[in-house]
Amino acid sequence: MISLLKNRATVRQYSDKNISEQLLIDLLETSFRSSNTGNMQVYSVVVTRDEEMKKQLAPCHFNQPMIVQAPIVLTFCADFNRFTKWCEYNKAIPGYDNFLSFITATIDATIVAQTFAIAAESKGLGICYLGTTNYFAEKISSILHLPRFVVPITTITVGYPASIPNQTDRLPTRSLVHYEQYTDYTEDAIRNMYAEKENLPEMKQFVLDNKKETLAQVFTDVRYTKSNNETFSAMLLSFLQKQGFRV
Amino acid sequence: MISLLKNRATVRQYSDKNISEQLLIDLLETSFRSSNTGNMQVYSVVVTRDEEMKKQLAPCHFNQPMIVQAPIVLTFCADFNRFTKWCEYNKAIPGYDNFLSFITATIDATIVAQTFAIAAESKGLGICYLGTTNYFAEKISSILHLPRFVVPITTITVGYPASIPNQTDRLPTRSLVHYEQYTDYTEDAIRNMYAEKENLPEMKQFVLDNKKETLAQVFTDVRYTKSNNETFSAMLLSFLQKQGFRV
Repeated sequence: MISLLKNRATVRQYSDKNISEQLLIDLLETSFRSSNTGNMQVYSVVVTRDEEMKKQLAPCHFNQPMIVQAPIVLTFCADFNRFTKWCEYNKAIPGYDNFLSFITATIDATIVAQTFAIAAESKGLGICYLGTTNYFAEKISSILHLPRFVVPITTITVGYPASIPNQTDRLPTRSLVHYEQYTDYTEDAIRNMYAEKENLPEMKQFVLDNKKETLAQVFTDVRYTKSNNETFSAMLLSFLQKQGFRV
Repeated sequence: MISLLKNRATVRQYSDKNISEQLLIDLLETSFRSSNTGNMQVYSVVVTRDEEMKKQLAPCHFNQPMIVQAPIVLTFCADFNRFTKWCEYNKAIPGYDNFLSFITATIDATIVAQTFAIAAESKGLGICYLGTTNYFAEKISSILHLPRFVVPITTITVGYPASIPNQTDRLPTRSLVHYEQYTDYTEDAIRNMYAEKENLPEMKQFVLDNKKETLAQVFTDVRYTKSNNETFSAMLLSFLQKQGFRV
């Protein structure tokens, strides 16, 4: 089990082999055994298999080819709609139209997504997370008909791997762990922990390809820019309000 | 692997057996292999083993006994501090003081927490999540010395189980899954999917003990009240601003 978790890598190219409905439901049922807040299960999963639906979702994920190529796309949603309705039908006054409840449901939906990812990998499937879900949450919700109190949190494409991908680098384990209290990073500590990453041939090429001076600039100027982050923040906050979560 | 995930249950009582530092680091290293956004690894884990530190943290988690009793308490944090510093030391202008970046880091920290939970369970350990982390994020941050751009997201207590706990109920799998588009729930659908839960002897007792008419009222009036949710929402939003994430 540990070796499976240690040796995994994200899979972006899938074979033609389909995933049976029985296996999908078994993996989802497995993921729903995860811990969740107060056993409220404030999440839902939307399964996309239909080619036409995938084509509609693709632009919400920058047209990354996994969306159309994967046999299944799963959108994991924070969902206080079901629970709120249950309260309303049972003489109980729900109070979940707030930011804390949104964060609670976000964490629970993510826990389910990650258990699904691990369960799928244990069955020989490959997965890829799509962080774009938070950028275009409103457009995705419109395509998937998500009602009030339901917000898409993350998306996983899943399929049998076309080939075994290489693992990407990680920062040194110790640099991500703090004992008893957080020890803030000195400049030396930062330079040491990022040195291996910065010196990887593919990272050096990445800097050259993007005509930048440092790897960090590829992130700030190309991949995750301040301008995009601010635009998407405003879009997400506005959408949360529309879905009924007061922020 | 699937059977391990299916048969798991939350463990709230731990034996005296300690967890070796080698095992802890191995589990953390394993969890850091999880998917994360753009390989930025915008999370940190704070390890609490010290008795005095556990006593300080306990009130932030409603003095639930797991905090003091577990050999290890782990606080999983959204962390854009390390990444922002790396940008600043490398002539790159970071733009991560926004809501989207907070959500990105929240999801990444949760994915790591859940992989840790599964890895730990595969080694015979038991875990318990503490959702209280989001209620008292500011107090926890003060105790753990979390700097700007670092926010505690979830906490896991971990130890060898004192006994094997029973599994709690779950809603029927199909009621949590939607195909192609979200099908909103009718009153009949809600009543059907919650019937099994409502009829469990322990849930009926729970309603009686709380002197309520319905199980839903135990949630809205006792466990997760509108008033508490609103108070904790305001506290969390205010703390995010203080930590540098504009909301």
